[in-house]
Amino acid sequence: HSCWHAQEFGVMSLFGVSETVHTNLGFGLVALLTAGGEQIFSTAVFKCPCNDLNFIYGMVFLLVPALALLLLGYILNRKTWKLLTGLCQHRGKPLRCKKLVAAGMILFQISTTALVAPSSWIAVALLNGNYYECAMTGTNVSIYNKHVCREKNQEAQCEKELHRFPCGKGPQAVRDDVLLSLRAESQILGWLLITLMMVTNLLLTCVARCSSPISYLQLKFWKAYVHEENNLIDSYADKHAKALAERNLKSFFEKTPPENFITPSNRDWEKIS
Amino acid sequence: HSCWHAQEFGVMSLFGVSETVHTNLGFGLVALLTAGGEQIFSTAVFKCPCNDLNFIYGMVFLLVPALALLLLGYILNRKTWKLLTGLCQHRGKPLRCKKLVAAGMILFQISTTALVAPSSWIAVALLNGNYYECAMTGTNVSIYNKHVCREKNQEAQCEKELHRFPCGKGPQAVRDDVLLSLRAESQILGWLLITLMMVTNLLLTCVARCSSPISYLQLKFWKAYVHEENNLIDSYADKHAKALAERNLKSFFEKTPPENFITPSNRDWEKIS
Amino acid sequence: HSCWHAQEFGVMSLFGVSETVHTNLGFGLVALLTAGGEQIFSTAVFKCPCNDLNFIYGMVFLLVPALALLLLGYILNRKTWKLLTGLCQHRGKPLRCKKLVAAGMILFQISTTALVAPSSWIAVALLNGNYYECAMTGTNVSIYNKHVCREKNQEAQCEKELHRFPCGKGPQAVRDDVLLSLRAESQILGWLLITLMMVTNLLLTCVARCSSPISYLQLKFWKAYVHEENNLIDSYADKHAKALAERNLKSFFEKTPPENFITPSNRDWEKIS
Repeated sequence: HSCWHAQEFGVMSLFGVSETVHTNLGFGLVALLTAGGEQIFSTAVFKCPCNDLNFIYGMVFLLVPALALLLLGYILNRKTWKLLTGLCQHRGKPLRCKKLVAAGMILFQISTTALVAPSSWIAVALLNGNYYECAMTGTNVSIYNKHVCREKNQEAQCEKELHRFPCGKGPQAVRDDVLLSLRAESQILGWLLITLMMVTNLLLTCVARCSSPISYLQLKFWKAYVHEENNLIDSYADKHAKALAERNLKSFFEKTPPENFITPSNRDWEKIS
Repeated sequence: HSCWHAQEFGVMSLFGVSETVHTNLGFGLVALLTAGGEQIFSTAVFKCPCNDLNFIYGMVFLLVPALALLLLGYILNRKTWKLLTGLCQHRGKPLRCKKLVAAGMILFQISTTALVAPSSWIAVALLNGNYYECAMTGTNVSIYNKHVCREKNQEAQCEKELHRFPCGKGPQAVRDDVLLSLRAESQILGWLLITLMMVTNLLLTCVARCSSPISYLQLKFWKAYVHEENNLIDSYADKHAKALAERNLKSFFEKTPPENFITPSNRDWEKIS
Repeated sequence: HSCWHAQEFGVMSLFGVSETVHTNLGFGLVALLTAGGEQIFSTAVFKCPCNDLNFIYGMVFLLVPALALLLLGYILNRKTWKLLTGLCQHRGKPLRCKKLVAAGMILFQISTTALVAPSSWIAVALLNGNYYECAMTGTNVSIYNKHVCREKNQEAQCEKELHRFPCGKGPQAVRDDVLLSLRAESQILGWLLITLMMVTNLLLTCVARCSSPISYLQLKFWKAYVHEENNLIDSYADKHAKALAERNLKSFFEKTPPENFITPSNRDWEKIS
């Protein structure tokens, strides 16, 4: 029986990545929600300060929400906690290489799931262009500023007043030129990021399928098995807990000694987890 | 039998923190409601007075509702009262170190739950920027005022009329600059607070899971047990109370001596609480 | 048997306050209804008279509805009448100290419940600011008026026409300044009141729980018992009364001497009340 579960563990870690195919619809929903949220933020909350803070402000709006979404992705993923509990319980024991590799694979697969929302945020923000525009006009790196203002009339004034461009100040003609090219850069980066996400998704699923020792139909069987086992564990545990609670309370209110009750030991639990 | 419950107590205090994962949806709802309430307040009720009161007024709107929400979080949490009753009953007896640590952990875990709403309030208020803007233009600290008005035309007038800026008074160009940078500072602080909340949540859950002696599946079983026990205690207590009340009233109306009735003693109650 | 009820009485008076936890939802509803009512009054009914009556008018709208709500709270509370009946029956007999303390505790606990609605009224009214604004422009205390109009242009005119400000009369610039700071003061007071309410609630419940001799779970059992007993008293009393009435009427119409009927004596009733 414990052999069943060792095998199952290996299988789980493999088709966890290929499960991404199945949950692509869910990923699409997450990406859409993120995009909607980004739109609301960029119109209602974001206002470029047009001073020294430009770069920090733009970067905070571009990256910090993405970081928050990444952490949220880790927090909300059940597998993170399964993995962590598993690792912590082996703290005392010597870690075998095989288990470390399996844990690394699960971590990798959690990360791929958690990265969907932050990538969407950054991609949509870059396609929008507001944050990048604001950040890049406030870099205060003179080489970059020269690069942005090259081949323009009033080059000196452009470099000096660059941080005021997103608020609609500074010489009109130059400003429009600069903002248009910054926005274009931002949108090119956005499309590249989206393509990168797609390619990575495709490659990862390919690798996961190829390295799996089992066929497509067998995989479906295993998925069904794991799903059924999880359901049954829940229902058995519920039944067991109810019986145990009833026995303890009965003995408390009626002042009788509790009956004997067979319950799995901690070691048994560890073996199946 | 009492050993069962001692074990249960230790388990409860541990996975209470990790329950945060399970209740993340509830937290999201609380945060959303808080954010909505903040929006209503900041548009309908908040009006910066634009005089000496600016700093106090802004800070009151930023912090006092958060404090009220924190207290409300403590008041509405059942565990607060369970813990308090438990601590007060041991007043006379010598407190063992182990119990104190357990109580500290429960208090810590109640606090993490209670902090969700106030943190959300402060985060949304900072992202909005109204309160911070009003508070920071009324600090009356000349160094800060100089910092805000540096590199502006009309520096002296800016410092003098700073507290009137949020009401749309004072020189237009300077005012817009100052308000934009204050709003930017406020929003950067807001995003940092949100990231901090996420990181803290992740770390706390990690620590709680790692220090737990039981596996993920066993945890689910224990949660089911505690849930069932709570339900059954309620139903048993109801049945018991009904029987006791019926006996007492029957003996009162029919003037017969009350029958003997087995009821748990106060000491028994204390042992299982 | 009477010992049962003496114990019960002590328990009742103690967890009456801690019942506030259970009824926090009800309190929230009361507070919400009060707030809504206040909003309706302040827009539809309240119109500052802008003359000598300002102070009285504002204070009446701020305090008199609160007083009415307080009295309503006392009237609608069943415990008020239970306590009053109990106290009046002991008029002739010497009052023992223990009973007086118990009565004081119940009165205190009724007051805490009755204070919810008036506090909400005052808090919402202060957050709104209309009543305070109107009251404070009509104080007719020259020191206060000077304080309000300090550092303004047209100081003399401001002091003189202060009571006309809430109706939109008097010099515009000065008027706006004065009304904004009065509204700010009012809202700060409102928030402080809300915090005070929260802290008081928390502290009272703490004290009530700590001084209670019983544990959290036992408390739940006792609540269930008291609830059941109240229900059963009503049903038993109904049954008993019906039987008694039937016997009396039968004996009246059939002109037979009434059968003997066991009914509790007045002394018995007093003992259980």
